[in-house]
Amino acid sequence: MGRILTFGEIMMRLQPVGYKRFFQADLYESCFGGGEANVAVSLTGFGEDAAFLTKLPENALGDACIAELKKRGVDTRFIIRGGGRLGLYFSEKGASQRPGRIIYDRKNSSINEISSNEIDFNALFSGVEWFHFSGITAALSQNVLDTLLALLKEAKKRRVTVSCDLNYRKKLWSKQKAGEVMSELIGYSDVLISNEEECKEVFGLEAQGSDIDAGVIDAAGYSALAEVLTDKFRNLKATAFTLRGSVSASVNRWAGVLTTAEGGFRSKEYLVGIVDRVGAGDSFTAGLIYSLINKMHPQYAVDFAAAASCLKHTVEGDFNIASKGEVESLMNGDASGRVQR
Amino acid sequence: MGRILTFGEIMMRLQPVGYKRFFQADLYESCFGGGEANVAVSLTGFGEDAAFLTKLPENALGDACIAELKKRGVDTRFIIRGGGRLGLYFSEKGASQRPGRIIYDRKNSSINEISSNEIDFNALFSGVEWFHFSGITAALSQNVLDTLLALLKEAKKRRVTVSCDLNYRKKLWSKQKAGEVMSELIGYSDVLISNEEECKEVFGLEAQGSDIDAGVIDAAGYSALAEVLTDKFRNLKATAFTLRGSVSASVNRWAGVLTTAEGGFRSKEYLVGIVDRVGAGDSFTAGLIYSLINKMHPQYAVDFAAAASCLKHTVEGDFNIASKGEVESLMNGDASGRVQR
Amino acid sequence: MGRILTFGEIMMRLQPVGYKRFFQADLYESCFGGGEANVAVSLTGFGEDAAFLTKLPENALGDACIAELKKRGVDTRFIIRGGGRLGLYFSEKGASQRPGRIIYDRKNSSINEISSNEIDFNALFSGVEWFHFSGITAALSQNVLDTLLALLKEAKKRRVTVSCDLNYRKKLWSKQKAGEVMSELIGYSDVLISNEEECKEVFGLEAQGSDIDAGVIDAAGYSALAEVLTDKFRNLKATAFTLRGSVSASVNRWAGVLTTAEGGFRSKEYLVGIVDRVGAGDSFTAGLIYSLINKMHPQYAVDFAAAASCLKHTVEGDFNIASKGEVESLMNGDASGRVQR
Amino acid sequence: MGRILTFGEIMMRLQPVGYKRFFQADLYESCFGGGEANVAVSLTGFGEDAAFLTKLPENALGDACIAELKKRGVDTRFIIRGGGRLGLYFSEKGASQRPGRIIYDRKNSSINEISSNEIDFNALFSGVEWFHFSGITAALSQNVLDTLLALLKEAKKRRVTVSCDLNYRKKLWSKQKAGEVMSELIGYSDVLISNEEECKEVFGLEAQGSDIDAGVIDAAGYSALAEVLTDKFRNLKATAFTLRGSVSASVNRWAGVLTTAEGGFRSKEYLVGIVDRVGAGDSFTAGLIYSLINKMHPQYAVDFAAAASCLKHTVEGDFNIASKGEVESLMNGDASGRVQR
Amino acid sequence: MGRILTFGEIMMRLQPVGYKRFFQADLYESCFGGGEANVAVSLTGFGEDAAFLTKLPENALGDACIAELKKRGVDTRFIIRGGGRLGLYFSEKGASQRPGRIIYDRKNSSINEISSNEIDFNALFSGVEWFHFSGITAALSQNVLDTLLALLKEAKKRRVTVSCDLNYRKKLWSKQKAGEVMSELIGYSDVLISNEEECKEVFGLEAQGSDIDAGVIDAAGYSALAEVLTDKFRNLKATAFTLRGSVSASVNRWAGVLTTAEGGFRSKEYLVGIVDRVGAGDSFTAGLIYSLINKMHPQYAVDFAAAASCLKHTVEGDFNIASKGEVESLMNGDASGRVQR
Amino acid sequence: MGRILTFGEIMMRLQPVGYKRFFQADLYESCFGGGEANVAVSLTGFGEDAAFLTKLPENALGDACIAELKKRGVDTRFIIRGGGRLGLYFSEKGASQRPGRIIYDRKNSSINEISSNEIDFNALFSGVEWFHFSGITAALSQNVLDTLLALLKEAKKRRVTVSCDLNYRKKLWSKQKAGEVMSELIGYSDVLISNEEECKEVFGLEAQGSDIDAGVIDAAGYSALAEVLTDKFRNLKATAFTLRGSVSASVNRWAGVLTTAEGGFRSKEYLVGIVDRVGAGDSFTAGLIYSLINKMHPQYAVDFAAAASCLKHTVEGDFNIASKGEVESLMNGDASGRVQR
Repeated sequence: MGRILTFGEIMMRLQPVGYKRFFQADLYESCFGGGEANVAVSLTGFGEDAAFLTKLPENALGDACIAELKKRGVDTRFIIRGGGRLGLYFSEKGASQRPGRIIYDRKNSSINEISSNEIDFNALFSGVEWFHFSGITAALSQNVLDTLLALLKEAKKRRVTVSCDLNYRKKLWSKQKAGEVMSELIGYSDVLISNEEECKEVFGLEAQGSDIDAGVIDAAGYSALAEVLTDKFRNLKATAFTLRGSVSASVNRWAGVLTTAEGGFRSKEYLVGIVDRVGAGDSFTAGLIYSLINKMHPQYAVDFAAAASCLKHTVEGDFNIASKGEVESLMNGDASGRVQR
Repeated sequence: MGRILTFGEIMMRLQPVGYKRFFQADLYESCFGGGEANVAVSLTGFGEDAAFLTKLPENALGDACIAELKKRGVDTRFIIRGGGRLGLYFSEKGASQRPGRIIYDRKNSSINEISSNEIDFNALFSGVEWFHFSGITAALSQNVLDTLLALLKEAKKRRVTVSCDLNYRKKLWSKQKAGEVMSELIGYSDVLISNEEECKEVFGLEAQGSDIDAGVIDAAGYSALAEVLTDKFRNLKATAFTLRGSVSASVNRWAGVLTTAEGGFRSKEYLVGIVDRVGAGDSFTAGLIYSLINKMHPQYAVDFAAAASCLKHTVEGDFNIASKGEVESLMNGDASGRVQR
Repeated sequence: MGRILTFGEIMMRLQPVGYKRFFQADLYESCFGGGEANVAVSLTGFGEDAAFLTKLPENALGDACIAELKKRGVDTRFIIRGGGRLGLYFSEKGASQRPGRIIYDRKNSSINEISSNEIDFNALFSGVEWFHFSGITAALSQNVLDTLLALLKEAKKRRVTVSCDLNYRKKLWSKQKAGEVMSELIGYSDVLISNEEECKEVFGLEAQGSDIDAGVIDAAGYSALAEVLTDKFRNLKATAFTLRGSVSASVNRWAGVLTTAEGGFRSKEYLVGIVDRVGAGDSFTAGLIYSLINKMHPQYAVDFAAAASCLKHTVEGDFNIASKGEVESLMNGDASGRVQR
Repeated sequence: MGRILTFGEIMMRLQPVGYKRFFQADLYESCFGGGEANVAVSLTGFGEDAAFLTKLPENALGDACIAELKKRGVDTRFIIRGGGRLGLYFSEKGASQRPGRIIYDRKNSSINEISSNEIDFNALFSGVEWFHFSGITAALSQNVLDTLLALLKEAKKRRVTVSCDLNYRKKLWSKQKAGEVMSELIGYSDVLISNEEECKEVFGLEAQGSDIDAGVIDAAGYSALAEVLTDKFRNLKATAFTLRGSVSASVNRWAGVLTTAEGGFRSKEYLVGIVDRVGAGDSFTAGLIYSLINKMHPQYAVDFAAAASCLKHTVEGDFNIASKGEVESLMNGDASGRVQR
Repeated sequence: MGRILTFGEIMMRLQPVGYKRFFQADLYESCFGGGEANVAVSLTGFGEDAAFLTKLPENALGDACIAELKKRGVDTRFIIRGGGRLGLYFSEKGASQRPGRIIYDRKNSSINEISSNEIDFNALFSGVEWFHFSGITAALSQNVLDTLLALLKEAKKRRVTVSCDLNYRKKLWSKQKAGEVMSELIGYSDVLISNEEECKEVFGLEAQGSDIDAGVIDAAGYSALAEVLTDKFRNLKATAFTLRGSVSASVNRWAGVLTTAEGGFRSKEYLVGIVDRVGAGDSFTAGLIYSLINKMHPQYAVDFAAAASCLKHTVEGDFNIASKGEVESLMNGDASGRVQR
Repeated sequence: MGRILTFGEIMMRLQPVGYKRFFQADLYESCFGGGEANVAVSLTGFGEDAAFLTKLPENALGDACIAELKKRGVDTRFIIRGGGRLGLYFSEKGASQRPGRIIYDRKNSSINEISSNEIDFNALFSGVEWFHFSGITAALSQNVLDTLLALLKEAKKRRVTVSCDLNYRKKLWSKQKAGEVMSELIGYSDVLISNEEECKEVFGLEAQGSDIDAGVIDAAGYSALAEVLTDKFRNLKATAFTLRGSVSASVNRWAGVLTTAEGGFRSKEYLVGIVDRVGAGDSFTAGLIYSLINKMHPQYAVDFAAAASCLKHTVEGDFNIASKGEVESLMNGDASGRVQR
């Protein structure tokens, strides 16, 4: 077992209590989260040694954010302090036919002032076996992208396994720009995690037979899609998709597929009642990384990743709370939710 | 586009937090609501200019009530201050097989001391194109009924379109009394909104094939019912029904039908997970008024009204929070509840 | 109608607010509960006269516990004060595929220092017609078991009807020990309440065709099981089972069966959305006792018991809040959850 | 030691959480309270046997109110059910220079429909040694006053000691009417509790040297005042005053004086930081009754009463929570507030 | 009586519940506030007609902000929508010796993208008699300053009275820059509101005999200071100072002085227990504007302003809630905080 | 600068929200705390490297406790997992004349099953310069005392500085037993922290001129007391006392004295409005250790310790949140509590 490093932005999330809409809210629950931070936190929950790299402002909000990561056992020694502000996002919980809403307020946050000059690569990569990033990080700003590229080059130099979550956000950049940049970045990656919608938006590729808005998941087309991607990015050793069928804002279908040299593998499909769906994809990624870095069979990997992210839907906040034992219990078939005394 | 006037009572609602029953509650969420006020609020949410007429006590609770209406953009200039007390209702949220419960405490509230002498009809009706009231208002007291009749006569004199929500409440008056009075009042109306149960109770008319308690909705019989009503009240230009199928206190089926000279139109049926169902009928009415005053097609009208009220079930409080765009997005088919970033 | 006495432990329950997990909680809702206390509380809710015997520490937490029982109308005059501490349990609410979790912290609680010398049997049993206990009480400690045996002997001497809820808790004792002790205790009992899983664990007996974890209930095998039990324990006049099908932590199927000399009777099956499932079995027991002590027909008894416990799933806390009228309304078919105004 | 009976109204109190004003509140803490109910609750806290007579509506709010009294150990068997509604009052907590505000909404509450025909005087007065009422009760309505007179006559007939808290509320009746009625009622009383302001308003009598609004208390004039009252009402055996010096809404000076045949006695003066001052006078009265019914020395009585009511200022809700031991500890000098471990 | 216009930024404020520090917070209370918005809100509370000009983003947070202003009766018709984000500030409540802390996050907020081209000056100034701004607004950005200058020129052209609150914030600009710009802006002003500390920082002027950190206020030096200012800015017709003596984070001394052609006037000094001190200065300013626009005597003006702002310290949020009657009651001497029933 | 090790119990604390008493509570705030853990947390807040040794159960509550320590930057690697349960304490917040109350429920907690065999002394003491413990730890059980003695011997062997907080708890052991055991343990100590009351109870020594219950602090007698102690325990290099004057449960006087070879030093005295006084003494100790390990002057040390603990009174929870800068700002004289923007 070795060390995993993730790099990206972590934000404060502000969400009206219960089902209150922004218009009527006067009480907000706060937590911290961001794609790559969520992955690191999930991994420490499985017993892995994970570090998170970012830049946070030198104020009490930055302190609180780091403390929360420490609480989760994430190695925060490499977090750079400085820059103007903590990125924020406001989240309004959806219910039934009313969709959740997110208002990002992350512009000019500290990470956008990061520079690779601030990083001691030797210390940072000491003992690291896996590096993870997502398309969100790539989209933040040129500074962040430059730093990401420097990290990827260093990772490759050191034969560190690299995983990339495509994670396309249309508010951050255009499809075209995303396609260009992500193509370059996936060139450094061994594992790609994505979903059908993103693949279509970024690369114009789509799986057949699924209709997300109608709550229907058909895994059929995903193998073909994985094949096309692997053709396009020859360096990829594994390609995984999360399959979300949005029955409503309160109920989703959820499953994962994983394609490796050993073939295509598909998890059970879960019908999940949603407590908090933010970070579900990141939990999937973490489950996958955990399985792969520990040389588990691809079927175990996709089952573990899907079960971990299924559980995330039932946990408040961006960060998952699910032990290896809890995940395995679910993937092994106990989805009854019976009280554990 | 013109101005809409509604008249009725607005109450403070007190509801135990979460699923607590009255017996165990020591913390109550408060909001304000009442049929015609809810309609006015929904209409301003769609961008309409709406005024609400009522009478409220000259104390801090009355002030707070008016402030909340102002917050929603409702014209409160015509609200009369005085009288003894603010009407209240206590609401216990239901769950699954346990029904919600409402204890009304509205007797002797200020509106019951209203008199048409307190109203400047010229100022009140200036620019008004539509007047709306419900059967609840008619049932409150003789003072309120007298004022309502004066308003209806004034409305007719000024060729203002009038809509009536039958809204029968058995605790307020007998079926027989309701039948007599409402028959007279519907005589002033152009549009009638009701549901099957009320029609049966007040007029002894019923649609075939529905069984509300069993969660079954069959729109079949409603066209015939609308026809019978139009025969009975020749002045009616449009008749609408909300169709609720109560699967449980937590899940309802919900749809609407609208019959006009152009024929019968039916909305999609929604299976809604309920956050707060109070005011759903009023949201339907508001959607209908919005559509009709803006000369939309009846199919649009019933679709818009049903989608608006579907969303209301997911919003805390009596007042809907749903923009025109949100309603149209749902009526046009996106019921997936996917997060809007 | 007569008086019912129950004996057992009552604990403080501490549960993170909402769906928070222990790991992230900093706010706990507290209430009091315990099998036999829950039964007594339910019974007073149906208008019965019920007393609860236990031992509680002489401090403010013990005072608060007794006050809560008084609030529910339970006769607390026989509660013994003293001993070291109030038993506690920490409860984490489950959601969807994530099971609820309970951490017991009841060791060395005051009841374990009870002795039959502290009890005035004449006063305690004055007017008592029914005595109820559960397997949990038997498992607590030798002191409690000795006291329980003394109570059972006294009950038999006084021709008091005795009911026993098998309620096996593997954390408290081994299957073997439970089998031995419970066999003795059931020897004093007229009515046995259990579920399939417990019967299997304690007596190695099981019903055919049910699969709890899969959310499937098949009542078929329960009649046979009841027969076997009645063969084994000749003194039993009635045997009841609760049937839980755990669809998820949020949704359960729920029904009951009752076998008496008059034959086998089965309740309707409910699909319940869970607000709080703790104490559901105790509510069933209370419904059964209420029906049997009032000489209702077995079909009424099992219907009443199942409906009462169905409602319990929708009520926060260990204690049910459901009047006789509410239970009868549900058992008579109104499961629509429509608002009662 | 014997039984104490009190008679009056109990209301639900609704208070915005924290220091929120009505204008901005959307969350209300609820509790129950009313002068004579508060007295009964305090007395059970001191170990006395106390019953409370009132009339409450036959609904879930009435049930909850009775349950809360039961929780406090008050005998509720004589409470009459029926009538239209539960009385309410809305309370806004003051702070520093901003005064607290109360909006009463008690008109037409159930107690106003009470009749002495509904009362079984023999059962009610069985074992009763002391009867307590206040001027608020007298002011509610003719029905209540008639009932009160019937109770007073019965009390006198049975040689029950009677105490009266003058408790003048200008919103309920005029000074003149209060003066007339209370003069008659005090004629039935053995003990009178009042404060300077009320005596002035109702009887035109005032103590010298105090200035409530300036936060100054001078006990000097109270002996003379007591003398004048005893001259006016020859039946009075004891006269007590609470002395409040309002430094601000957050800090008050508080003391009591008691005049009996043995002379004038004065308590220590407390400077209290206020958590909740509602019911402080009732706690004083309860402390006095407790002391006098147990034949304590007048100095003990006024000390106990003042200390009990001092503690009430630190307890949330209308009802005091203060054991005899806690009160004695304070009256004996430990006002340091040091943590009791 | 006429209309008052204020111009500036309004932000969302996020404050940990209770006394929680940022480091430990996971629940934030939100409200909206900003110097000139607070002034407008206070003025409508006194019955004045006030409009607020700002620029807010076209999203749900901007909507909620405007709705809150509407709730308070502020004319929001001139608010410009657009720009990137809503300004925020995080506020940690102080207690005793621990100071409160504020982290501003207002950079790049929408108002900084304002341009006078977006303003219809004729509509905006129609009926306006008074224009108010503060030094904070001047310091935000060149865009805002340009717009402010345009507004001041328009105001002067229309003979609108202008008031300026010096309000120096060192995090926004240097003392030197503030001195230069504010000197120009005060040149357009008729009334200046400030405090000693600011005068010293911006203009190097200070009053004698006060020591804010020591909780000591000495009004002596303020008359001289006012004279110096009037010498420097000949156009000033009135100069007011708020005098804060910070005893601790929980208790402050508070008073005001006003110097006009009629001489120097000083308010009573209040010792205030603090619920929320943000916006106290703005409440003072609003009280002053209210008094002066209504031609009250300077003594009334400074008394009213000081009493209004004293009350603000007891009200949660940036916005004051204090009616004219409440303020006059306090300034006329009733600071006892006695409950108003 | 070097590493500090502390050893003791950490418990979960459960405190009713706000000023609710146990009797009326149904919502508890939870946090973790215990003397030596509090010291370690404070030290990391000052930038020190601190480890905490204890034993915690292998369940989710133990996990949460460790996570909270990690959040605060405490080294938790040496915490032993196992044993029966997490120690608890219930805390009721006092107000004004009503004292706070604590109900301990710590018997049979995991630490009582600790054994020195479970400890790797070499790893544990690697780099350690200071070891701290308190009398509470010594009193827990023989197992804990044995382990403590082993640690002290190891510390002495390694020339680690040892500090002891006398911290006498009468519920844990008798004065006599405490006197015997603590005398032995102080024999291993270089620094003793205590207060007057404890010294009197444990050693029969007392300072002159103070009266805690009366809120009076007189530092006069403490020098003499320190001298007596140093005579008794020749190994002591420094003796410190915290001086608490309990004005009420809401307001305390607070100061510290320190006696070293350089003489006696006394801090400023603070009048603190209390948010949460638990852990104040531990914050003092931490401030002292921080100062002494960093070779600060004794006057700095006592000033820093007193200011740190003054701030603790304003912070919710057992753990202090106060940076070195905040403490120095207060000790250097800024006690004004003015908002830091």
